[in-house]
Amino acid sequence: MRILVTNDDGIDSAGIYALVHAMRRLGEVVVVAPDRQQSAVGHALTVASPLRATQVHRDGEVFGWAVSGTPADCVKLGVSTLLEHRPDMVVSGINHGSNTSVNAIYSGTVSAATEGTLMGIPSMAISLATFDETADMTLAAEVAYDVASRLRDLALPPGTLLNVNVPPIARENYKGLRVTRQGHSEWKDSYDVRTDPQGKPYYWLTGEFVTVKEVEDADDIVVKEGWTAITPIHYELTNFAVLESLRTRF
Amino acid sequence: MRILVTNDDGIDSAGIYALVHAMRRLGEVVVVAPDRQQSAVGHALTVASPLRATQVHRDGEVFGWAVSGTPADCVKLGVSTLLEHRPDMVVSGINHGSNTSVNAIYSGTVSAATEGTLMGIPSMAISLATFDETADMTLAAEVAYDVASRLRDLALPPGTLLNVNVPPIARENYKGLRVTRQGHSEWKDSYDVRTDPQGKPYYWLTGEFVTVKEVEDADDIVVKEGWTAITPIHYELTNFAVLESLRTRF
Repeated sequence: MRILVTNDDGIDSAGIYALVHAMRRLGEVVVVAPDRQQSAVGHALTVASPLRATQVHRDGEVFGWAVSGTPADCVKLGVSTLLEHRPDMVVSGINHGSNTSVNAIYSGTVSAATEGTLMGIPSMAISLATFDETADMTLAAEVAYDVASRLRDLALPPGTLLNVNVPPIARENYKGLRVTRQGHSEWKDSYDVRTDPQGKPYYWLTGEFVTVKEVEDADDIVVKEGWTAITPIHYELTNFAVLESLRTRF
Repeated sequence: MRILVTNDDGIDSAGIYALVHAMRRLGEVVVVAPDRQQSAVGHALTVASPLRATQVHRDGEVFGWAVSGTPADCVKLGVSTLLEHRPDMVVSGINHGSNTSVNAIYSGTVSAATEGTLMGIPSMAISLATFDETADMTLAAEVAYDVASRLRDLALPPGTLLNVNVPPIARENYKGLRVTRQGHSEWKDSYDVRTDPQGKPYYWLTGEFVTVKEVEDADDIVVKEGWTAITPIHYELTNFAVLESLRTRF
């Protein structure tokens, strides 16, 4: 089996190393990842400039490709152009930081897996729900292996991928895998307004992640309880529930 | 009524001018838009650097704020920090280029309207389905006015916004408004590989937009037929259809 590994923290991040080593137990791994950190890039594509791709080596062997673009760019360029063989699976991560609830729509990690799905390749995103850059990736890497090893056999419908979020806890407190839905937590945004030495303002995004509505089996709540949340997501955005009533208004 | 207008083509684009003039018929308009073009930025947020915001004037009066960020940044910063009053509506556009089908997930225009919705503000995105930069915006501006004038009364459910796509055709061929679903067209990607003067390759994204599956009332097909497509979309990504069967597998 051939596995394309990517992420949004960049090709030199701790998370991608942990994921590569876990995926090598499943098959042949090829890395195509951004050459630098791409945080909260959403589902961005590079269209107004060309991409560069550089083959990088680690530990005396080819590790993969570093691309001057976003995670979605990496999957598109990798599958269509850089790779000799079409991958059988796309695995994106291990992201530093939760991609539960609304975070999924801002996530470069999720967008890379979505690109894989768009190309008809079984795909998953995996995140460790902490921003602590020294966090232990061992449990998340094991979960990545466990879920990825079952992914092809799940035969998910076209357009559907798995968004996996692992709790940042010690193994003795870990509860296992749970299939979940996207939660209803959101960011209450604020900006820290500072003044530069020339007296001009600049604005840093800050915010608080709050649960707007408690829903059963929500990914973020389950993660807080010590479970890994596995949410099947798709890029069908239509709100079918309002289609008919809306037709009477136009 | 106070209307926040933004876009992803930048504060100096033809589309935002046409939209501002249309929205002024409905109420007080304030513009918060990117200071430069932001194509295919997806739902990106600027988190690793601070934002700048500059008040800009046009025709001898305040036109709005130019922000050194993405469309989603503009709405977050505008509503939370820059604007004196919370807007009653967020209208994003008029985008050059269709945001039907899968394009919605790459669209900065749509992401800005989604941010408005996340903040509980009735929101819509409007696009003219052509990349021709000299295209006449008159019909699209009228449609923007028409749909926006009804938007608040629609009382869409929380989290739902309207994604409006206008055909680039002469008025005599125009058929009117249609409520639609997100279509199933996708990009078949390829890259134009070129060689720089130093002999190194670089990669330009190209691609062909193809209909993968014909679905009834699909936004892109309806636009091709000469209708304006109005798709109610939301940021609920869970594929509920597979939740139960997936639970038996984990």
